Amino acid sequence: MSLEKKILILAKKAKKAAQAMAMVSADEKNKALRLMAKSILAHKKFLIRENQKDLKAARLKGYPRALVDRLTLNEKRIKAMADCLLDTTRLKDPVGEVLVSFKRPNGLLIKKVRTPIGVVGIIYESRPNVTSDCIGLCLKSGNVSILKGGKEAFYSNKAIFDVLQKSIAKTKIPKDAIHLIPSTDRKSVNVLLKLDEYVDVIIPRGGESLIKFVAQNSCIPVIKHYKGVCHTYVSLHANLNMAYRICYNAKVQRPGVCNAMETMLVDERIAKRFLPKMISLLKEAGVEIRGCAKTKKIIKKGIKKVSASDWPEEYLDLILAVKVVKNLKEAIEHINIYGSKHSDAIVTRNKKEAQEFLKAVDSSCLYVNASTRFTDGYEFGFGAEVGISTDKLHARGPMALPELTTYKYLVLGKGQIRK
Amino acid sequence: MSLEKKILILAKKAKKAAQAMAMVSADEKNKALRLMAKSILAHKKFLIRENQKDLKAARLKGYPRALVDRLTLNEKRIKAMADCLLDTTRLKDPVGEVLVSFKRPNGLLIKKVRTPIGVVGIIYESRPNVTSDCIGLCLKSGNVSILKGGKEAFYSNKAIFDVLQKSIAKTKIPKDAIHLIPSTDRKSVNVLLKLDEYVDVIIPRGGESLIKFVAQNSCIPVIKHYKGVCHTYVSLHANLNMAYRICYNAKVQRPGVCNAMETMLVDERIAKRFLPKMISLLKEAGVEIRGCAKTKKIIKKGIKKVSASDWPEEYLDLILAVKVVKNLKEAIEHINIYGSKHSDAIVTRNKKEAQEFLKAVDSSCLYVNASTRFTDGYEFGFGAEVGISTDKLHARGPMALPELTTYKYLVLGKGQIRK
Repeated sequence: MSLEKKILILAKKAKKAAQAMAMVSADEKNKALRLMAKSILAHKKFLIRENQKDLKAARLKGYPRALVDRLTLNEKRIKAMADCLLDTTRLKDPVGEVLVSFKRPNGLLIKKVRTPIGVVGIIYESRPNVTSDCIGLCLKSGNVSILKGGKEAFYSNKAIFDVLQKSIAKTKIPKDAIHLIPSTDRKSVNVLLKLDEYVDVIIPRGGESLIKFVAQNSCIPVIKHYKGVCHTYVSLHANLNMAYRICYNAKVQRPGVCNAMETMLVDERIAKRFLPKMISLLKEAGVEIRGCAKTKKIIKKGIKKVSASDWPEEYLDLILAVKVVKNLKEAIEHINIYGSKHSDAIVTRNKKEAQEFLKAVDSSCLYVNASTRFTDGYEFGFGAEVGISTDKLHARGPMALPELTTYKYLVLGKGQIRK
Repeated sequence: MSLEKKILILAKKAKKAAQAMAMVSADEKNKALRLMAKSILAHKKFLIRENQKDLKAARLKGYPRALVDRLTLNEKRIKAMADCLLDTTRLKDPVGEVLVSFKRPNGLLIKKVRTPIGVVGIIYESRPNVTSDCIGLCLKSGNVSILKGGKEAFYSNKAIFDVLQKSIAKTKIPKDAIHLIPSTDRKSVNVLLKLDEYVDVIIPRGGESLIKFVAQNSCIPVIKHYKGVCHTYVSLHANLNMAYRICYNAKVQRPGVCNAMETMLVDERIAKRFLPKMISLLKEAGVEIRGCAKTKKIIKKGIKKVSASDWPEEYLDLILAVKVVKNLKEAIEHINIYGSKHSDAIVTRNKKEAQEFLKAVDSSCLYVNASTRFTDGYEFGFGAEVGISTDKLHARGPMALPELTTYKYLVLGKGQIRK
């Protein structure tokens, strides 16, 4: 059977299962999640063995160490996968939640109620835990999932999926509620992206090129989880001790993630006081500084010159671009031009200025006097997350269970007709 | 200058104006809307004169009467346009609304706040009033609008737009807050649909082929306002007198709109009692009946045979497909296969059955014992609407001011860093 045909059949099954999936009770879903967690732990040897096949291939192909690390499954990571499934049982089932309820003058009672989106396609790269995390979140929110992982993790994903599928078979969850596209061929992504009749939304998780490819080739609505080019603006009115702590945390605590700071903006009226200590702290932590001309005037040694291509770049590393700006206005302009609408912060004691920053910056999460590192489903109290949406439609910022739902209006009448 | 270049410049201006537009106060927006309404009325002779140019061309080209009717501006319609703008002043400004506010254990205060989407592109067909209606709704929700109307209405749209633009110039609204693509070339739509860097969302309003074209060619997220293939299911447990009234209303009261019923489903255990009177009432109103084999067994004369191509069809006319179904399950299956996820109703006195219908049917608005004709922003109490979304993401069902917004998270700290 051709790849196209295989994926079409799989998508049709998914669509068919979506209706039954929408009706499954929270108890039944939690039962399945617990079984899945248990089964992941029970099969850890199998999972590690299958993962070895991927790791061996990765080494033969000479993949970069960071990729091999992301790909690796060990006892600790398998436990984390099981824990994520158990955490998901503790999240409130969003399905059926009444968002608004109101009565019209003609007596019609209208309820706006959360429902699953239907069929969710998730396209991701090399981290195998995404397989179980996303299957768990989609299941709890009443959605059918279709997963397509990276070819590097083929054996690992298949093993995790098989274990989860066997657990589901022991419950009342429809057997077609979870799918993994069994192919290493990237063409399978193209095929999936055209099946708008069967798939309701596509969520790509991974690097910039994957997300661009998906966004440009999909007939299905895409919720993009794009890069994080996060800024911190240290205002003239900043508490400098607070600014040192916040900027240091935002850059150094975990530089490889999307909510880490990539550019620090500093008001020129405070730069001379602020920059020397800040930059020396960052350099002690191993951060490479790329400064603008004004920064280089203040810090004459040991920093590189920033270039225009730095501003929109997500380093995901111990590198920081630094720009001295004239004022709040220039900071806002810079962020709105070069930022990725993810997370941006201002450090200031001036409330009016903070308000203007919050209004004018067009990003999903805006911080006053706190580190951008808090943009995260757990830190926001949402529980597990699918990711951080940098889109403006449907879901923005940390995307958790409620964002995996849509709604419908239920209109209850007593024979009302329109006049 | 090439068309591409012209539209690119226009889109860049729109994007630039979006930030200023997001900060305009409700008072200033209402002032502009009142001026716009006044100006529309003051220029009615000009508008009618320009509209005559379109009407003359339409007659020369032999356009169908229905299209010529939709295209026509007269005093009454111009008054309705002004009234819509005035109605919009009375709608609550959604921008800045705090949707949720919560404090985290670490003291961070997180607020989820409504913000404008940014730049909204609206692609529509021959009705000139869409120009002012949509400009008004986008303006009130703090968005910048880019409109592209049908070539048939070129002079009318241009005239309305010019009048509105002059009104805006008298206010503090950024002058680039509203745009009309000044071209009759359909190629301009293709150009617009690729400008995802500047346009945040596309809303197509019009016939099926326009919407399909937009959905398939857009790099920008699209909120589809697709056809309405609405059903009413008359259950075994229906109050028949109520069913007569509801079905009659849903089909006859205004057949040319998307929330009118196109297919009536009848439980086979009640069909013999229900159909004769129902069909005779509909036929008296001039409705052409297209019945399934079982329907034709009961109503032997004066009805046509339905064909497979009828089920997914939006007649927008006094035509009704009728199907006798075995039970609720078959009704639900039929609707989920052939419906357009718009509005569907059940007539029943059985609460359990009603609940199952509400849960299992995958449409934006579901009715129990009421006419589908109520799916409408005004009838839901939302005020004016952009249309009825048949999509599942971002906005579903009647799409009014709140659906023209997105949100952002504001995180207020006192120096919190992540551990």
